[in-house]
Amino acid sequence: MYISKDTALRMIAAAEDKANEIGVPMVIAVVDRGGNLIAQVRQDDALLASIDLALNKAYTAVAVKVSTEVLGELAQPGQSLYGIQTDKQGRFVIFGGGLPVAHDGVIIGGIGVSGGSVEQDVACANAGLSAYC
Amino acid sequence: MYISKDTALRMIAAAEDKANEIGVPMVIAVVDRGGNLIAQVRQDDALLASIDLALNKAYTAVAVKVSTEVLGELAQPGQSLYGIQTDKQGRFVIFGGGLPVAHDGVIIGGIGVSGGSVEQDVACANAGLSAYC
Amino acid sequence: MYISKDTALRMIAAAEDKANEIGVPMVIAVVDRGGNLIAQVRQDDALLASIDLALNKAYTAVAVKVSTEVLGELAQPGQSLYGIQTDKQGRFVIFGGGLPVAHDGVIIGGIGVSGGSVEQDVACANAGLSAYC
Amino acid sequence: MYISKDTALRMIAAAEDKANEIGVPMVIAVVDRGGNLIAQVRQDDALLASIDLALNKAYTAVAVKVSTEVLGELAQPGQSLYGIQTDKQGRFVIFGGGLPVAHDGVIIGGIGVSGGSVEQDVACANAGLSAYC
Repeated sequence: MYISKDTALRMIAAAEDKANEIGVPMVIAVVDRGGNLIAQVRQDDALLASIDLALNKAYTAVAVKVSTEVLGELAQPGQSLYGIQTDKQGRFVIFGGGLPVAHDGVIIGGIGVSGGSVEQDVACANAGLSAYC
Repeated sequence: MYISKDTALRMIAAAEDKANEIGVPMVIAVVDRGGNLIAQVRQDDALLASIDLALNKAYTAVAVKVSTEVLGELAQPGQSLYGIQTDKQGRFVIFGGGLPVAHDGVIIGGIGVSGGSVEQDVACANAGLSAYC
Repeated sequence: MYISKDTALRMIAAAEDKANEIGVPMVIAVVDRGGNLIAQVRQDDALLASIDLALNKAYTAVAVKVSTEVLGELAQPGQSLYGIQTDKQGRFVIFGGGLPVAHDGVIIGGIGVSGGSVEQDVACANAGLSAYC
Repeated sequence: MYISKDTALRMIAAAEDKANEIGVPMVIAVVDRGGNLIAQVRQDDALLASIDLALNKAYTAVAVKVSTEVLGELAQPGQSLYGIQTDKQGRFVIFGGGLPVAHDGVIIGGIGVSGGSVEQDVACANAGLSAYC
């Protein structure tokens, strides 16, 4: 099973709907199980920083098979994975907004959202994930 | 004047239509006047190499304000810009498939396509550009 | 279909046999369809340069879905893809020794070999590929 | 004295046995005294993130001549080496799973394991190290 381009765009559209509802422009990215981009969209006026962050959140979620939020807890000073964020040339993002995409219990990709507060990013990522089916 | 996200997606859809007509899966990217991603789509089974190439063609076209095809002629051994392709960490692409997007004579962004032969990439980039209006 | 770790090691062992027969120490790498490493082995006294080259040859072959040898012809000055070697932070290798691995006509990974002359690298890559079945 | 390719593969196999016993797929890497890869193996379904982490743990252990676990204690906020993890393009890993390999008191290489919890990674790295003799 894999995420088709059409599915990725549907997930992004769902995340965009949530972003519009919240009223904060977002960047949304979907990657495949190899961590490679399928599709990415930057809403008008979204932060430049969010281009890399959204893609890297999606990458991180598939690379570690948990959400970036969970990884973030493990990466705090004194926790077991503190320091992971500098590996892979800094591609690992350790705050919320990146979620793995699973099919029948197998991770087949990731979605990443950046642009608002972490809570807003997570809400949009969840909305995007809900559109996978 | 700037390229909105909706316009970028419309340009990408037009390039995709051409790719479907040709029968070769493509990656299409649209960047703004700052060279930053607005949207990027990888069609199912498109080459992994095309992810970076499409984005970098779009970047190159806006960065030098000519098509990557024209830049390519100037970058051949013995020509005036020979060697430019190694600058900017290798982001400049020097073969066809990247086009600047102009509005009233002002460059406001770029579109890049990769996935087929250079001729096919150029045809899709032109189809995408035609959707800008 | 995917290349298992055991299959990758069997391919590497076959390439090693060929390298031993030739008498030149080699580095051999096998990557999956996402371009990510499955296994890599450096024979004693193989060139340090070959560590990156072998991995990047394998990456390149799956990323462009042709051998690095074929890509190399297209990347010569005056040819259609001249300049591609600087993209992707220079990961594309444009001389022989990288081969895509196909299953039922679908590219599912790549093998890359470096250490000897290009002809020797290609011979070892072919030996490794032959062990896939 | 140096770690031969055959020794590296034997160490990796021993670490794999431990990973199989634990039931978590791992990536294992062995590097020489120059910090350069000798061999690396990714077990089926191991995390993508572990490819870089395993190699960099092995690198780190030989580069600082202590385990990545010990380095991690020194790299916490307020400790003497806080911040080291961003040097060398982020290659230094500061949590457990990387061990130096010594012969007669001389460090001749490193082994790195990633894929499970830090405790599991350390257990596999120790198993791999035990196979050196």
